[in-house]
Amino acid sequence: MNRGMVYISKKVSFSSAHRMFNPELSDEENLRIYGKCANPGGHGHNYVLQITLRGAPDEKTGLVMDLEKLKILLDEEIIRRFDHKDLSNDVEILKGSVASMENLVKVIWGILRPKISGAELYEVKLWETENNCASYRGGV
Amino acid sequence: MNRGMVYISKKVSFSSAHRMFNPELSDEENLRIYGKCANPGGHGHNYVLQITLRGAPDEKTGLVMDLEKLKILLDEEIIRRFDHKDLSNDVEILKGSVASMENLVKVIWGILRPKISGAELYEVKLWETENNCASYRGGV
Amino acid sequence: MNRGMVYISKKVSFSSAHRMFNPELSDEENLRIYGKCANPGGHGHNYVLQITLRGAPDEKTGLVMDLEKLKILLDEEIIRRFDHKDLSNDVEILKGSVASMENLVKVIWGILRPKISGAELYEVKLWETENNCASYRGGV
Amino acid sequence: MNRGMVYISKKVSFSSAHRMFNPELSDEENLRIYGKCANPGGHGHNYVLQITLRGAPDEKTGLVMDLEKLKILLDEEIIRRFDHKDLSNDVEILKGSVASMENLVKVIWGILRPKISGAELYEVKLWETENNCASYRGGV
Amino acid sequence: MNRGMVYISKKVSFSSAHRMFNPELSDEENLRIYGKCANPGGHGHNYVLQITLRGAPDEKTGLVMDLEKLKILLDEEIIRRFDHKDLSNDVEILKGSVASMENLVKVIWGILRPKISGAELYEVKLWETENNCASYRGGV
Amino acid sequence: MNRGMVYISKKVSFSSAHRMFNPELSDEENLRIYGKCANPGGHGHNYVLQITLRGAPDEKTGLVMDLEKLKILLDEEIIRRFDHKDLSNDVEILKGSVASMENLVKVIWGILRPKISGAELYEVKLWETENNCASYRGGV
Repeated sequence: MNRGMVYISKKVSFSSAHRMFNPELSDEENLRIYGKCANPGGHGHNYVLQITLRGAPDEKTGLVMDLEKLKILLDEEIIRRFDHKDLSNDVEILKGSVASMENLVKVIWGILRPKISGAELYEVKLWETENNCASYRGGV
Repeated sequence: MNRGMVYISKKVSFSSAHRMFNPELSDEENLRIYGKCANPGGHGHNYVLQITLRGAPDEKTGLVMDLEKLKILLDEEIIRRFDHKDLSNDVEILKGSVASMENLVKVIWGILRPKISGAELYEVKLWETENNCASYRGGV
Repeated sequence: MNRGMVYISKKVSFSSAHRMFNPELSDEENLRIYGKCANPGGHGHNYVLQITLRGAPDEKTGLVMDLEKLKILLDEEIIRRFDHKDLSNDVEILKGSVASMENLVKVIWGILRPKISGAELYEVKLWETENNCASYRGGV
Repeated sequence: MNRGMVYISKKVSFSSAHRMFNPELSDEENLRIYGKCANPGGHGHNYVLQITLRGAPDEKTGLVMDLEKLKILLDEEIIRRFDHKDLSNDVEILKGSVASMENLVKVIWGILRPKISGAELYEVKLWETENNCASYRGGV
Repeated sequence: MNRGMVYISKKVSFSSAHRMFNPELSDEENLRIYGKCANPGGHGHNYVLQITLRGAPDEKTGLVMDLEKLKILLDEEIIRRFDHKDLSNDVEILKGSVASMENLVKVIWGILRPKISGAELYEVKLWETENNCASYRGGV
Repeated sequence: MNRGMVYISKKVSFSSAHRMFNPELSDEENLRIYGKCANPGGHGHNYVLQITLRGAPDEKTGLVMDLEKLKILLDEEIIRRFDHKDLSNDVEILKGSVASMENLVKVIWGILRPKISGAELYEVKLWETENNCASYRGGV
């Protein structure tokens, strides 16, 4: 078997509140930009997060990375921080950013990148609903 | 064709925040009962609501009820009230109730029952996540 | 183990065209009743059909009914008749009925009922889309 | 709000091997009854188990039962026993039964029934695949 | 946070009839190429369309593009044209093309490309059924 | 219409047993690496396989490749070999490899690559569960 790269993905989910709101803008501007997503009381989602790694499967184990270890990492770094929280107010690492899907995937990339070794972090993908998602593959 | 009863169902969804919390209880008791679901900042879900009606299809139209009319009713009575809101604080009809799935299906039943004619409201079913749901079929 | 009843279900799918239209009504009345579903060219769906049987599992085999046999029956009686057809014009057994979900579940019940033995046909359920379904449990 | 019954459901999943095989029958008879499901090496599924309880929501908590407690019960009694096991050979409580969906739902009912209090166990439903499921509501 | 590109996607769905048929070929050739998909009465699908855009999130809003605006664009340009229509006969922009998934994604790309600004149209993906899809990323 | 490349995908599924185990390692090492996935009796999954091809749609047929032909190829080469089998012991072509998702996608690539003509095999993707998948795009 050749040593071509294989992509492996793991999905986890968390249920959180958020509000689309930039405090540097007026209420009118927030409402114009975000519509109902700027409602003062916030709203929420069952977020689904999919992490994709790229690597050559180890010849002995047949694995790119043990997905159970990835699950533990995601539990510690993402679920513990984000699940059953208000992303717009309660999560330290999100302070100062609008809690948009776009910003979330970049923040999650920043959290996970330095924690993953032995395989390359290839993509962070986040569904806010079944119909809307964002993904990030790093880079500038 | 005989005139036996047919059940028809329609699903809609809404994204809302909520917090499991009973203000008549102490913070400690709320935490003990609801765990992370009582976190002060609240959390949220993509709720999926399924309404089931029961009736004999009309001989001329072949329909129990026009599902587009049911959709309009659900938009006006449920989506407009619940979507992108904080169910624990922003929704008048939920004031005084813990925003549990169990209470929500009973409240939604109470809203819809008097608005539906020509067919019988059979069941109100609500998924909070893909894994948790509650349903109510009326009665005492 | 007691001899209580167990329900078993099998899902199959078919892709068909249909048009909501009653030739005994005027075009205006059809449009008023069915809206865009009465568009002259018709439209179509990926229908999902779920058949539920009820019975006591056989003590020797542990089965209510061999689901592979049920699958063959569904292929012969339903898929062969309905799949990749125009339900409003091409299917003999549907002639004279509006091809509504409500009428379809009753017709499918009528087809399957006499063909199933050893277990009781309990429910015929049909999804026209992920959000709309009808079901029938027989009776008058 | 009246005191009508509410149904709540929880889904969990487990991945197991099984083989449809009754040792009291000849190999030929097993093959005739179960087809490829009797292949000697066995096969497997991602089983999805849905437990439904029925009860009146507690007036103080708004809950029929704490679903986190139900999740712990399912982890201890079902997941720990069945997940990543060979259901036809490794699970003590299934010894002597063909590991059919029909028998599994009855066995799971028997395990859970005495462990649940404060609400009534209403239904045990098990999907072997997305298209095949069995359910049991007790009784004789 | 760096200015790397983020991909955002939006799903919408429509229910349409179509028939695989090239009028420049004989009936026999159409049948040979398309099989049951060439049945004269046509058939239909619940199509699911996913549009993916690529861009740098705006620093002020945290958004690549307002997905509500994308939804309005899709409603006007795609849903209004394709939903509850016969794609093989009723849709002007499809005249002269076989209504295959492959041709549809290229036509939809051609419709949307000039209408999207501020972000790059990255991919048009269309599911005809849960098991079959086509996607297009432009180019020659 | 330009001649840009279109990607088409087809999903099929199979239900198989497997055990994560490398016979060249000690039982302790296997347990340490694979955890419960190394349980001696094995376990199983409903595998979902998605094959993606890339090509220019034929100008006459509008197709990259007839997906029914691809389905027949997958039935003959993959389903017949893998479905209702123990992947760790019963499948000749997997002998000597750990039956990990990563190895499976590379083996499936190797089977299909020489059988596909007229379009390019772009990706082999395999879900072991709804949450875990691997994919391979060839290369060294």
